[in-house]
Amino acid sequence: MDVVKMLDEKVSRRGLIKGAAGIAGVAALTMGGLGLLSKVEAAKTSYATLPWPYKKFTAAEIKEAGNIAHDNWFKHFCSFAALSGGVEILRRKVGGPYNSFPMELTSFAHGGTAGWGATCGTLIGSGVLATLCAGPKIGEQIANEVCNFYATSALPIFVPDHPKAQIKTTSVSDSPVCHLSVGKWMKKEGVGFLSPQQMDRCGRVAADMCMRTLEYLNLWADGKFEPKTKAPFMANEIPSQNNCTDCHGDKIPQTSGKFGTGLDLLKGGH
Amino acid sequence: MDVVKMLDEKVSRRGLIKGAAGIAGVAALTMGGLGLLSKVEAAKTSYATLPWPYKKFTAAEIKEAGNIAHDNWFKHFCSFAALSGGVEILRRKVGGPYNSFPMELTSFAHGGTAGWGATCGTLIGSGVLATLCAGPKIGEQIANEVCNFYATSALPIFVPDHPKAQIKTTSVSDSPVCHLSVGKWMKKEGVGFLSPQQMDRCGRVAADMCMRTLEYLNLWADGKFEPKTKAPFMANEIPSQNNCTDCHGDKIPQTSGKFGTGLDLLKGGH
Repeated sequence: MDVVKMLDEKVSRRGLIKGAAGIAGVAALTMGGLGLLSKVEAAKTSYATLPWPYKKFTAAEIKEAGNIAHDNWFKHFCSFAALSGGVEILRRKVGGPYNSFPMELTSFAHGGTAGWGATCGTLIGSGVLATLCAGPKIGEQIANEVCNFYATSALPIFVPDHPKAQIKTTSVSDSPVCHLSVGKWMKKEGVGFLSPQQMDRCGRVAADMCMRTLEYLNLWADGKFEPKTKAPFMANEIPSQNNCTDCHGDKIPQTSGKFGTGLDLLKGGH
Repeated sequence: MDVVKMLDEKVSRRGLIKGAAGIAGVAALTMGGLGLLSKVEAAKTSYATLPWPYKKFTAAEIKEAGNIAHDNWFKHFCSFAALSGGVEILRRKVGGPYNSFPMELTSFAHGGTAGWGATCGTLIGSGVLATLCAGPKIGEQIANEVCNFYATSALPIFVPDHPKAQIKTTSVSDSPVCHLSVGKWMKKEGVGFLSPQQMDRCGRVAADMCMRTLEYLNLWADGKFEPKTKAPFMANEIPSQNNCTDCHGDKIPQTSGKFGTGLDLLKGGH
């Protein structure tokens, strides 16, 4: 059974259905039947379907989103920051579903999910932002590119208009994992967790991920977004980062070389 | 500067504000002014504020949510599964904001975030479910308990009504990380990634996290939810799991022993 092909076909078929009866289709159907459906009901029906409308951000708006994200880190930490930086401007530019969107719904994802140090919360917040605006399929492709950007860039890049601390250094995490990313940076900067420097650094990283996501969304809106990063579970035959030696040392388990079986995981060694 | 205290106070003040002007408050304000605000606008205003209304699930409904989660894994994978298992029933029981909620917004989080193997997607989906129903503060407390349950339990527990594969074994991940959780299970079961067994196992884990979250929400609705798991970033002075040796071997960096400085991270060793 080729499950991947089957799943891909499902996604494509869904894509076609959405093309015919997505936001625009639902709006058209419900506008003609307002005698039967209240406006509230019509709004509910369309809001449940992604993507929501998107309007390209100007360079100034992307920078503003970065500053909002940085400021909002100090309200509800990193995941909220990366998400709300985009949504606050979308409320002004687009309104509609963004006005009723509960921006705090991924706040718990801060600190690598409730402080457990796994996926950096900025990648959850920015992934939701990408998905709201571009739908789940493109949203995931954008999230994958943003994860790669996060793992391979010397961060933070953004310099906020109102920094709460001065910082000296940048670091490359080689990973989307909070513990590795903030740990490597704190070690290089010479500061501890919840120091003013660490908090400002994480606020800047939230801005970086929010802004990068908006840049990809702008490309997508122009028909110019091309996914370039191979999904890690396709490259390594298991959900994974590419920093194998960080945890495994030189004992990296070998995968099978044939996608979908991975039975050599059992053999260990390499 | 005691940032944690400052942040805690912020959260508490916000809690008070929400107590006065949350869902109920906004509804009261807007119901009196419908000449000025349309019903659509009133709905938007209240839907942006969490928590949304929650009604306790019966034992049968929790089981049904588990079966929906398991089935929905095969539509959009793990994060969607854990979230939609609860939301589909909340649409029927409560309606309102759940009807217009785009359940696919965290689908990208599958495979530990777009396949990067970090936070298990079931913990993102179930964390959103907890946050929608109980708000960001309690939602995070529930997410923390569910992360601990995930890391310390032999999973999967749930046996779906319609399994797509028979599986033999359970495993303890010691971690909320997809790569470790699914990797340890596959090794024990003797199967590869995207095997029918692995997919059914991950669908069952999605059901387990969805159901556990609903159990905590039920406790909370009864005023009986008590957070018991110390947030890891409080315990270890950095966002982290408690499986230090899994990656560090015996070279676990020492933290300072004083929360908020963590400068001994620089010293390495232990």
